[in-house]
Amino acid sequence: MQRYEHILLALDYSQESARLIDKALDMVERFQARLSVIHVIDAIPMPDTSYGTVIDVNQEVDEPLLAAEQLKFKALCQQLQVNPAEQWLVWGIPATEIINLAKHVHVDVVLIGYRHHHGLAALFGNKTEEVMRHVQCDVWTVNLR
Amino acid sequence: MQRYEHILLALDYSQESARLIDKALDMVERFQARLSVIHVIDAIPMPDTSYGTVIDVNQEVDEPLLAAEQLKFKALCQQLQVNPAEQWLVWGIPATEIINLAKHVHVDVVLIGYRHHHGLAALFGNKTEEVMRHVQCDVWTVNLR
Repeated sequence: MQRYEHILLALDYSQESARLIDKALDMVERFQARLSVIHVIDAIPMPDTSYGTVIDVNQEVDEPLLAAEQLKFKALCQQLQVNPAEQWLVWGIPATEIINLAKHVHVDVVLIGYRHHHGLAALFGNKTEEVMRHVQCDVWTVNLR
Repeated sequence: MQRYEHILLALDYSQESARLIDKALDMVERFQARLSVIHVIDAIPMPDTSYGTVIDVNQEVDEPLLAAEQLKFKALCQQLQVNPAEQWLVWGIPATEIINLAKHVHVDVVLIGYRHHHGLAALFGNKTEEVMRHVQCDVWTVNLR
């Protein structure tokens, strides 16, 4: 059978994500696979109707945030012994960025946390379900309830 | 970390399900885990409005079907070397039966195929998404596109 050679870990920084990191480490070892890691800094597009939809990023406000995210991301990647070329810290809509990267770097499986959303959050759709609907590979969901 | 000790394979009999069986065999070996298998024979409840909702099973028509399903199921379980006590051939609504069994026999992960539904089929909901929303454990989805 076609074994998993390349795993994509979709990282978040919640308290429960330690479980996700443990699973990634275990999976890399059991499958002797290559690991790529993505973390998406959530960006909500700001529609400017005069010029069409644009994403408005206020660089002065966001730079310290980005620097802090980079530090945290690098530390986690080091813990996971991820090759620098396979560390992806990106700014965008999480599901979209994960789907695009999975396709771009040809992964065999996406390892991602799953939370059940209630109320208002459910209206915005579930990132993990969205990823599952659109990637061409397998998806391993770690229950973060 | 808490490793996977008990895997539940939710089996279907589609052409693509050979991939699912391969993954199950590989996973059992890599994790040295116990395997339970469930196959649900889809039953659509027939509402009888005079007496409330009842499931009307015509035994005479369904018995040969059930016998054939049993043979196929037993053969697959033998191929997977599943303990007879951990073979579950049940009649019902697939997502519901899988969710209930996962809870009942305390599995650590459900291994299940995923198909993207379009058109009318999408209206009835996606079995795999439904399972993911309700089980307390991890879910490993194998893309059967």
